[in-house]
Amino acid sequence: MNSLVPETSLKRIVIIGGGFGGIELAKRLSKKLYQVVLLDKNNYHTFQPLLYQVATGGLEPDSIAYPIRKIFSGYQNFIFRMAEVYSVRSKGCLLETDLGEIKYDYLVLATGSTTNFFSNIAFENNSMPLKSVPDALNLRSLLLQNFEKLLTEKNVVEREKHFHIVVVGGGPTGVEIAGALAELKKHVLPIDYPELKIEELNIHLVESSGKLLAAMSDNSSKTAQHFLKKMGVQLHLNTAVTSYINETAILNPAGEIKCSTFIWTAGVKGQLINGFKDDAVTKSSRLKVDSYNRITGYDSIFAIGDLAAMKNADKEAYPMLAPVAIQQAKNLARNLNLQDNRKWNVFNYKDLGSMATIGRNKAVADFHHLQFRGMFAWLIWMFVHLMSIVGFRNRIVVLVNWMWNYFSYDRAIRLIIRPYKKNTNV
Amino acid sequence: MNSLVPETSLKRIVIIGGGFGGIELAKRLSKKLYQVVLLDKNNYHTFQPLLYQVATGGLEPDSIAYPIRKIFSGYQNFIFRMAEVYSVRSKGCLLETDLGEIKYDYLVLATGSTTNFFSNIAFENNSMPLKSVPDALNLRSLLLQNFEKLLTEKNVVEREKHFHIVVVGGGPTGVEIAGALAELKKHVLPIDYPELKIEELNIHLVESSGKLLAAMSDNSSKTAQHFLKKMGVQLHLNTAVTSYINETAILNPAGEIKCSTFIWTAGVKGQLINGFKDDAVTKSSRLKVDSYNRITGYDSIFAIGDLAAMKNADKEAYPMLAPVAIQQAKNLARNLNLQDNRKWNVFNYKDLGSMATIGRNKAVADFHHLQFRGMFAWLIWMFVHLMSIVGFRNRIVVLVNWMWNYFSYDRAIRLIIRPYKKNTNV
Repeated sequence: MNSLVPETSLKRIVIIGGGFGGIELAKRLSKKLYQVVLLDKNNYHTFQPLLYQVATGGLEPDSIAYPIRKIFSGYQNFIFRMAEVYSVRSKGCLLETDLGEIKYDYLVLATGSTTNFFSNIAFENNSMPLKSVPDALNLRSLLLQNFEKLLTEKNVVEREKHFHIVVVGGGPTGVEIAGALAELKKHVLPIDYPELKIEELNIHLVESSGKLLAAMSDNSSKTAQHFLKKMGVQLHLNTAVTSYINETAILNPAGEIKCSTFIWTAGVKGQLINGFKDDAVTKSSRLKVDSYNRITGYDSIFAIGDLAAMKNADKEAYPMLAPVAIQQAKNLARNLNLQDNRKWNVFNYKDLGSMATIGRNKAVADFHHLQFRGMFAWLIWMFVHLMSIVGFRNRIVVLVNWMWNYFSYDRAIRLIIRPYKKNTNV
Repeated sequence: MNSLVPETSLKRIVIIGGGFGGIELAKRLSKKLYQVVLLDKNNYHTFQPLLYQVATGGLEPDSIAYPIRKIFSGYQNFIFRMAEVYSVRSKGCLLETDLGEIKYDYLVLATGSTTNFFSNIAFENNSMPLKSVPDALNLRSLLLQNFEKLLTEKNVVEREKHFHIVVVGGGPTGVEIAGALAELKKHVLPIDYPELKIEELNIHLVESSGKLLAAMSDNSSKTAQHFLKKMGVQLHLNTAVTSYINETAILNPAGEIKCSTFIWTAGVKGQLINGFKDDAVTKSSRLKVDSYNRITGYDSIFAIGDLAAMKNADKEAYPMLAPVAIQQAKNLARNLNLQDNRKWNVFNYKDLGSMATIGRNKAVADFHHLQFRGMFAWLIWMFVHLMSIVGFRNRIVVLVNWMWNYFSYDRAIRLIIRPYKKNTNV
């Protein structure tokens, strides 16, 4: 048993998840002290902040994904396995995976978050999420397929549906995809589809609270709202979506929108793995951790990043952002490398600010008391994202595409490589 | 009826297929004389000569595909429809498509060729073809999945299968993919999989005749053979594959190879559309055409490119190559633009030579009596292919990747975006 990973005399740390946190941790852990085993169900790291640009034809999927083996080439005492983890058996320090059982001495869960449909089967089956590369490619295909269909669709009701795109959720993903769709509508679609009245295409952004980008400053939120309106996005604030059946989104308090594209960015939850006691798990499927990222009630199991529900001294939860994951990974690596847990540091979040881009020359950025908007914020946004992408080749390809998109007003990657088939259940 | 395409007072030419021939023809036909309608089941043009580089992680799929609408943006009297054509009803000048019926005055078939499995169900269900972007992505996924599996596979027979890759067919595609696999084996796989004895990986190239690259000069064929041997590819000349069942390729006259990856490049046939008289169709599903590309027995239906079986004055068939398709498209456009068929020119093929690349600094090129090999041929090959790729953005991205691959010895795009599931029938 357990020969899925070579045995050594060192203690083994297993990390589940090759996102921002898992990669940072695996890099920093001492391979002299530990055998480090990284598991992920994909063989690549996904740069999630740019998925919306893949979905709207601005970037190749392959330029925001990076082979995990390549990140760690040449590392000693490092093992990667492409595996899906089903559950943790903490009694025996065992993981159950699709490859078989894997033993650990320390376990770190860095599985991140997944789309939260709040148990609504209609949303789960019929909406388009945007959390993975295949999600982004499916959305790209569906958007283009719908315009192709419109050219020959005679049925008035069906035509109407294709002229409405609904984005649910006014967080960064919702704002960014709505903005990118508005730019497609303005610059690309009228050229591709001169036969259609593209000006009649409606992009709706529905947000249940009264504020877009709730985690940002009021100024930035207002600016984002102003930018989106200027770009022609129809905002529905203080509005919830209660159902999406028969290609009709039902709004609360009132109204409905018939739409063939329904994009769901209104919630995330922890990508939980089975086997934890109920009192370690929050309502949104995250794992409660102490200030060392240790899961409540477990000595040698940790969680970092989006999955970890950690509160600061003021009992406020940290945001589910890449910088939190990366900083927690750094702190945990330092602690584990020290071994002696009496020397451990508690996690201390340095807020680097937050940003969102709405469109060409249109972004908002909050850095403590400094707020930027417009072109300067947009340039900062691009620089920060470009530098965060893993891999020199990927950076060059992204930069080439951004320059191309900027000067040509084009989104050249409008390909339907694998047509998307809608789930026809419900 | 027939409102799938707007009606005009002009005669309508329908072109089926957005490959090299169809695109060239659609560009050159006079839109003052004709309404030009282009149909393709994809919304993009595929640059097929580089599919093998997508399959082996050297290029992004999106850099060798190009949106057809973008090629024709701003064209008047040009209509594109993403449609699959089921059959031609020449009596009523009608096409039956998945969108409905489309009328034509002139019809040009430019559907190209498809993989020929010679009615062998085992090949069709279990082999990996390489004629489309999804084919290339499936092969990329399968190759990588097999190495991931090998890391934890204990069964000796299963392990053995993953250590053999069989490529059937010694034409350009077979030679190029075998060479690219040999380079992956040499430069990339040992770094990604230090746990495996990658040197034990066997790449087999099986060719039923005694010669690789049968269409090229003896010199070039010999050189290609020499290059492949030097790169460690196992050549099986004068050997046919009669079956591939239970992951075992049966060779004729003798032998078998257990292999989990079985790549089929040993035959192509015309991508025929139903509705033609038997005597217009060749054994390999191509359409017999006269020297004006008019299909035998039909006045207003033409075929160009791989689908068209045309013979020259010496009764020799033209090769199934992009330059033939493009030149036939040019000649046909000229003829149709003249209208009066008494002024029509017969097709006259200018042989521009042929090339194949085997690996880094290793290519062969035949230009009439001039033959090149090695680095010079390789540079010509790259230049010609780069210039033939549609779109400036695609050219830059391909160039960036080639430079990256050359200087780093890397193939960075080794991603399993959509895992490939083997067909389990048969």
